[in-house]
Amino acid sequence: MKLEDIQNPQFLKTYDQEQLKKLAQEIRHFLISKLSVTGGHLGANLGVVELTLALHKVFDSPKDKLIWDVGHQAYIHKMLTGRTSQFDTLRQYKGLCGFPKRVESEHDVWETGHSSTSLSAAMGMAIARDLKGTDEKVVAVIGDGALTGGMALEALNHIGHEKKDLIVVLNDNEMSIAPNVGALHSVLGRMRTAKKYNKAKDELESLIRKIPAFGGKLAATAERLKDSLKYMLVSGMFFEELGYTYLGPVDGHDLSDLEENLRYAKKTEGPVIVHVLTKKGKGYKPAEQDQTDHWHGVGPYKIESGEKIKAKQAAPSYSKLVSDTLANLSEKDDRIAVITPAMTVGSQLEGYAQKFPERLFDVGIAEQHAMTMAAGLATQNMKPVLSIYSTFLQRAYDQLLHDVARQNLNVILTVDRSGLVGADGETHQGVFDIAFMRHIPNLVIAMGKDENELQHLVHTAVQYDDGPIAIRFPRGNGLGVEMDTEYEQIPIGSWDVLKEGNEAVILTFGTTIPMALEAWETLAKQGVSARVVNARFIKPFDHKMMLEILREGLPILTIEEAVLQGGFGSAVLEYANEHQFYSTMIDRMGIPDCFIEHGSVTKLLEEIGMTTEDVVERTKKLVLEKKKKGLYT
Amino acid sequence: MKLEDIQNPQFLKTYDQEQLKKLAQEIRHFLISKLSVTGGHLGANLGVVELTLALHKVFDSPKDKLIWDVGHQAYIHKMLTGRTSQFDTLRQYKGLCGFPKRVESEHDVWETGHSSTSLSAAMGMAIARDLKGTDEKVVAVIGDGALTGGMALEALNHIGHEKKDLIVVLNDNEMSIAPNVGALHSVLGRMRTAKKYNKAKDELESLIRKIPAFGGKLAATAERLKDSLKYMLVSGMFFEELGYTYLGPVDGHDLSDLEENLRYAKKTEGPVIVHVLTKKGKGYKPAEQDQTDHWHGVGPYKIESGEKIKAKQAAPSYSKLVSDTLANLSEKDDRIAVITPAMTVGSQLEGYAQKFPERLFDVGIAEQHAMTMAAGLATQNMKPVLSIYSTFLQRAYDQLLHDVARQNLNVILTVDRSGLVGADGETHQGVFDIAFMRHIPNLVIAMGKDENELQHLVHTAVQYDDGPIAIRFPRGNGLGVEMDTEYEQIPIGSWDVLKEGNEAVILTFGTTIPMALEAWETLAKQGVSARVVNARFIKPFDHKMMLEILREGLPILTIEEAVLQGGFGSAVLEYANEHQFYSTMIDRMGIPDCFIEHGSVTKLLEEIGMTTEDVVERTKKLVLEKKKKGLYT
Repeated sequence: MKLEDIQNPQFLKTYDQEQLKKLAQEIRHFLISKLSVTGGHLGANLGVVELTLALHKVFDSPKDKLIWDVGHQAYIHKMLTGRTSQFDTLRQYKGLCGFPKRVESEHDVWETGHSSTSLSAAMGMAIARDLKGTDEKVVAVIGDGALTGGMALEALNHIGHEKKDLIVVLNDNEMSIAPNVGALHSVLGRMRTAKKYNKAKDELESLIRKIPAFGGKLAATAERLKDSLKYMLVSGMFFEELGYTYLGPVDGHDLSDLEENLRYAKKTEGPVIVHVLTKKGKGYKPAEQDQTDHWHGVGPYKIESGEKIKAKQAAPSYSKLVSDTLANLSEKDDRIAVITPAMTVGSQLEGYAQKFPERLFDVGIAEQHAMTMAAGLATQNMKPVLSIYSTFLQRAYDQLLHDVARQNLNVILTVDRSGLVGADGETHQGVFDIAFMRHIPNLVIAMGKDENELQHLVHTAVQYDDGPIAIRFPRGNGLGVEMDTEYEQIPIGSWDVLKEGNEAVILTFGTTIPMALEAWETLAKQGVSARVVNARFIKPFDHKMMLEILREGLPILTIEEAVLQGGFGSAVLEYANEHQFYSTMIDRMGIPDCFIEHGSVTKLLEEIGMTTEDVVERTKKLVLEKKKKGLYT
Repeated sequence: MKLEDIQNPQFLKTYDQEQLKKLAQEIRHFLISKLSVTGGHLGANLGVVELTLALHKVFDSPKDKLIWDVGHQAYIHKMLTGRTSQFDTLRQYKGLCGFPKRVESEHDVWETGHSSTSLSAAMGMAIARDLKGTDEKVVAVIGDGALTGGMALEALNHIGHEKKDLIVVLNDNEMSIAPNVGALHSVLGRMRTAKKYNKAKDELESLIRKIPAFGGKLAATAERLKDSLKYMLVSGMFFEELGYTYLGPVDGHDLSDLEENLRYAKKTEGPVIVHVLTKKGKGYKPAEQDQTDHWHGVGPYKIESGEKIKAKQAAPSYSKLVSDTLANLSEKDDRIAVITPAMTVGSQLEGYAQKFPERLFDVGIAEQHAMTMAAGLATQNMKPVLSIYSTFLQRAYDQLLHDVARQNLNVILTVDRSGLVGADGETHQGVFDIAFMRHIPNLVIAMGKDENELQHLVHTAVQYDDGPIAIRFPRGNGLGVEMDTEYEQIPIGSWDVLKEGNEAVILTFGTTIPMALEAWETLAKQGVSARVVNARFIKPFDHKMMLEILREGLPILTIEEAVLQGGFGSAVLEYANEHQFYSTMIDRMGIPDCFIEHGSVTKLLEEIGMTTEDVVERTKKLVLEKKKKGLYT
């Protein structure tokens, strides 16, 4: 069958090993070729080609529920469920989503993006099944990296306790998004080499039965020994301790080994772990040989060489700049330690790790622990820097509030991927952080207008001694501005007038500053005099400047690449209100009250109505209305 | 030494076993007597009398860091560090805090309230120590219940990996806040009975050495057997797998056993788990015999009988009402399933559990898993109800946003302890939930004006089919209003005018409604005509009514027992702003941008400036200013 003709996975039921192998090869070719143009999560998907085929052969989706943790490894699942022809539009606006999406297919029963949710979802589905008395199977596919996330461990514990029929496929690729971390990883490592022990175990067991001493006064001990034999010799012990039947390790690229174990799991009662060993990037040399996770999520590349095709960039990425700045500051300041929850590569901390291996802590996918560990460091007068994506910071909201801010500890957050992120879509947009941080007492929130101001803000944060401070910065590359060679300290809560004007004030920060400046030019040409203020501190405000603006009575346009509800514009409303400037005209531009799907950032901003033209139009409208009303001028 | 004279724990160094025992007895007497008047966390503290003495004898606080998970078991620690004489003021306004508090003592190195943070904090402190090259010990004391929290498991995993010197005292009282849940609990159960196996293990080991067969061709197997002996026979295996040295189980009420093991732990390199078995309520019969956790946090009681001294209550608690309502609804609706993260007792779900044992899921302290499991249930067309305290909902912020709201699933949150909670203080005030939920798309947020409206809202939530809905309710007892016998469906987003008036509008909901009504009376007497609106839907608004109010041009006072930043009043500002009512006079009453300490709710509201008098004054001021300005009337 041609890949494009596949409507659902039914045809797999009658496929034999040879047909499956051929299909696996076709799928690999397809992915390597398509993704060389569109980009996407190549490595993870090449690793689960056989696993996905085996799952869809053994189980009956959508009746049986297949849940993909994180979800970036669901491309083959999408191909087998009728979406192959849509891959040209992968991760593009209105195109195929890079993650499972319930509106796309009845086979996508659970949407993801953030890691470690699959076991809880599976447990919910298994409980629902048992309450309803139906008989579908529930299968969660989770990577070894995602398993270190706290909520996955909570679920692992609860599932082991409740003994529901539920299959966990542990996709152990020895390398999650970042080289894997944690004691659990070592446990898995021991299991990987444990297969040879199984035979020894059997020999030993029969031997012990034959030893006369064990039949005598030590009989009880022997019984206990027999009982504990299943725990001995490491294999599966950890999971069996937690109440699971352990199967494996299974070669994740051997279709018959996979099928056999999945069939066994299907008929086993209670929770089962199928431990599958896969290789990320399997079948594509450049990705297979990658030890540093640079093939996790890729842009376009040349198929033959694996060489990445990059648009020429004027400036390094914001992530790199922050990493380098921290490294520079660490040279002179022993108090700095950097913590990342599995984003050493994503946030380009590799250079820092090389320079200061003892001061970079990659704690794995464990945002909550990362945040509170930073708090622990801060109690000892260190200067911990938690480098974290905006969207993943959501996981550590309580820890930020309860452990860091409530104790008013000097923890620095460098919040990567703040604002729209584009192709990764709604699970990854960094648009909520202002709304969920702004009401946390003691917390300073700032964002630089460009990479130069960003480096000064990072420096400022390290010098700041009055509590926690979050420095936001966007995904992608800097503007290419000239960089100061000396770090400057920027007064906390200070704003900066970038362009003068006396008919309206545009208050904005970060990524939307260039838009405001462009609008200023256009407005100036049309005879409208707007002021552009870089509100680089989202909290606290520049009280002096804000009060002046309010006293002047000028209409205000706020712009933020973040949600409007409870956001920066809302803070401006509150400020005006608190100071009883009831009649100030304020217009707030930002992200409306809905989730924003995938697509290029430019396209998304256009759709939302956040372009230079929008800024021009809305500013003009404000000025006009103000004139019409003639109030307080 | 008299308890009141203890300034610091130094004197313990020279105390012998007899002196310690006597001291333990005195401490118990003191606590049982004091708490019979003030109330507090009696059971947990009686359980750790000997453990606290042993810790302070073996370690040198504050140089060595003692970290108390959750922190409600730190009373003895407080007594040994000079605070005995302050116990009359326990949990009262400006009095001794019920949790560790850094401003109270240099011995309180870490503040808590929420569970499962201690291991991450300890890891941060251990890393700081090693980077600084100092040699203090870091000891975290964590209960078996708190260990199931995801962040504790994240930390357990990371600590096992990094191999830092760090001591985890596992205070295993076989009953955390609620009867313990989870597979980990079974693991601990097996360990508890494992002591007798240790001897057998030794016998077996020496036996095996003597067996000729093991010297022969099976030598390699024997070596492996010897290696794995330490894993055999359950004891400690789980933790040793994760990289810890396991000591125990230790009798937590045997001072010499405790001291010996803690000393051994102190000199052991790398991470150590000291598994201590304690009994909650030890030494006080009524508390010891409590199997249902009703002695966890108590009010005043009669010492002899243990009988609780309760103020006569006109009405049952809000928690009980919600629980009963859910039970009634569950009779006719098979789709309902209730999930609680270890708050079966706290949220009075015991009755529900008895009626519907198969539909009540206590997942242990695991808020993230609880939320996403609810999402999983909802995908299968069930009606999951997550019963959760407002303050603990903070832990599941990302899961609410990413798993529930983003997929727009019909999950019902019954948010207990919303608003100020009083004596538990700043870690437990439920004042952030509106600010952190209001910007989450698709989520409905509501709060009833009394227990009657609350039951209708719960009914409404179960009928609602368009996505997630959160029903807030306060701690404590209902107002004693008459209860309708039939459930009513309240239109989503509908508000209710409780008192008419045409000079100002008071918009409020929930606990502050009575205050508004009282203020209305007073205002009426003084000739001011205010309207009181029950804004029972915090999101979405009653658009028709809100627009009417704005069109009337009346000044508005918003009142909320929640933070002002991004809160309900802020939503009113946004609404007026979006509809371009620039000149509406709005005054927002609520909780300012700081953490609110412990004290009675009445006292706290007074301090914040949220009393009937404040409402009267601020309404009058609005009306007066409005008249002065004469704008848009």
